[in-house]
Amino acid sequence: MTTIELALVPKYSVHIGYGLLETIKLEHQNIAVFADMALQGVADALCRVLEPAGRVRLFLLPSGEATKQMSIYADSLSWLSSEGFGRDGAILALGGGATSDLAGFVAATFLRGLPFYIVPTTLLAIVDASVGGKTAINLPEGKNLVGAFHQPSGVWASLELLSTLPGREFRSGAAELFKHGLLARPELCAKVLEPGFGPHTADLEEILARAVEVKAELVVRDSQDRGVRTVLNFGHTLAHALEGLTAYEMPHGEAVAYGMHYAALLSELAGFANLTAWTRAFLDYQQPMRLPKFPWEQLERFIKRDKKADSRGVRYVLLEDLARPCVQYVPNHLQHLAWERLCGDGAESS
Amino acid sequence: MTTIELALVPKYSVHIGYGLLETIKLEHQNIAVFADMALQGVADALCRVLEPAGRVRLFLLPSGEATKQMSIYADSLSWLSSEGFGRDGAILALGGGATSDLAGFVAATFLRGLPFYIVPTTLLAIVDASVGGKTAINLPEGKNLVGAFHQPSGVWASLELLSTLPGREFRSGAAELFKHGLLARPELCAKVLEPGFGPHTADLEEILARAVEVKAELVVRDSQDRGVRTVLNFGHTLAHALEGLTAYEMPHGEAVAYGMHYAALLSELAGFANLTAWTRAFLDYQQPMRLPKFPWEQLERFIKRDKKADSRGVRYVLLEDLARPCVQYVPNHLQHLAWERLCGDGAESS
Repeated sequence: MTTIELALVPKYSVHIGYGLLETIKLEHQNIAVFADMALQGVADALCRVLEPAGRVRLFLLPSGEATKQMSIYADSLSWLSSEGFGRDGAILALGGGATSDLAGFVAATFLRGLPFYIVPTTLLAIVDASVGGKTAINLPEGKNLVGAFHQPSGVWASLELLSTLPGREFRSGAAELFKHGLLARPELCAKVLEPGFGPHTADLEEILARAVEVKAELVVRDSQDRGVRTVLNFGHTLAHALEGLTAYEMPHGEAVAYGMHYAALLSELAGFANLTAWTRAFLDYQQPMRLPKFPWEQLERFIKRDKKADSRGVRYVLLEDLARPCVQYVPNHLQHLAWERLCGDGAESS
Repeated sequence: MTTIELALVPKYSVHIGYGLLETIKLEHQNIAVFADMALQGVADALCRVLEPAGRVRLFLLPSGEATKQMSIYADSLSWLSSEGFGRDGAILALGGGATSDLAGFVAATFLRGLPFYIVPTTLLAIVDASVGGKTAINLPEGKNLVGAFHQPSGVWASLELLSTLPGREFRSGAAELFKHGLLARPELCAKVLEPGFGPHTADLEEILARAVEVKAELVVRDSQDRGVRTVLNFGHTLAHALEGLTAYEMPHGEAVAYGMHYAALLSELAGFANLTAWTRAFLDYQQPMRLPKFPWEQLERFIKRDKKADSRGVRYVLLEDLARPCVQYVPNHLQHLAWERLCGDGAESS
């Protein structure tokens, strides 16, 4: 097992390894487990592990982005209250990034905040959602527009869970891993592009630990996302728009893969290094769903509501070169041009 | 004008005086004013004051607790998004405590947090809701069960607004002022009980500044409400139950007045000083609506969901003596007995 300590206040640890579920001990008298309903068997087993410590209750959530709705948020809060949870309660999320986004926002706001733990079950959740304390739900107007910062008190990533998922889910989540490589550790990109990279890769624990470290370093330097941490949004501006316009039919990791290629195209247009060979190679590895060629005006409407948009325009995370991210406003005509190139170069069907 | 500085991070000021609305300047390009719909005229005037600095949009909210609903919260967020508010936006609440509770929770969670300002228009909001950063909405299961800590960046209490309110509203709000007196500055209690105390009292600015200081000191010592700040809940455990059971027909300040008398009865039962003459004198001043004599079992169900309840029982704020609050679990039979006494001693009709 590898343990990464995050030097936040209070500090907490991310544990990465195999067979970790059996080892989880929480010192709370009342524990609410919020689990993806597709994981009911794992959830039941986890509840049995936790039960010796106190009262454990299970609330099953819809799978995927469907759970990040206002109505599910409201139901979750009412359920906690009707089950008698008080300030001595704690919340544990079992599932992918959507599950921990919703459960984390519930934990951040029920009684103005309960302790929160995460057992991430997807690659994406391990390298991204579990670290950093961002929680969120969606509005009809766009993704992650509502939320709070609420750091977990502990994370257990048990990698045998990854083998139970469809290959597409793993490759989707690899987008965030690849992103961490581009931003700070290019050797991680090379690992992802090695033939056969998957849930059974021998040094997966080591690779994921390095990816989590990239994020952990940025989060510790900027827990409220007002500075350096912004670079983690690389690829996400276009991604959120694609997710919104496809009503979340496109998985987050696939949208991020297109978003990274788009950001690489923008970076080149802005006069920086041409890294599109890297982002295209990742698309070839991932094999995302076909890119829907929305008119630019439709995308623009979503992008203007992005959290990095303000009255001066939209700020993008670009790459000056490998491991050299920067943040800058990009003129609308260049955003439009890069979108035309993304649609035109057959990115979706190579 | 009196200014009280709160030494929080970042620090902010509460300004108390007359004619302050004309003086407000905010350095934000986009300002959303959330106002109680009963204050549309004041809101329009305030928007005109703010407009030179940037774009100002007005969202009118239902009056009173009705605004602290999940559906109004959701509508507020969608409205902000559809109006194109980004991270360079800010939110200003104009109204009583319910308005700033709702608007503050919106400000805490939209895009994970926008700057927040308050122009309180009721006595209760000035001495309580405007200071401390607690924001909240209600669930069908109880009051203030969902929320976040989000400190305002500035508060302007302009006392001429108090003269426009019904006398009952002022007397209701005086409960929180009286509470601050009991907890820390008994001379404030004496001021409230002087004949003719009201919106035209000559030294009102000074009295309110002292009351705000009581709260400010506790908040600075304990911004997350995990320690000394708990004493501010004096009278509130019963109050929230009365509000819930009357579907908020009983105003907060009147429920707090009964709650303080109840807590004084509990304190006496617990062996502390008998301060019920003070709390009864306040009831005589305030003239709240008649106390509905709910069976204890009905109250108990609400009280058990209180934020100060946990699996060991319910903690109450009691008074060992004037200005000597303490927090302790109270056995159920004493809670029940004090309720019988409250119902039996004609508190509501003297």
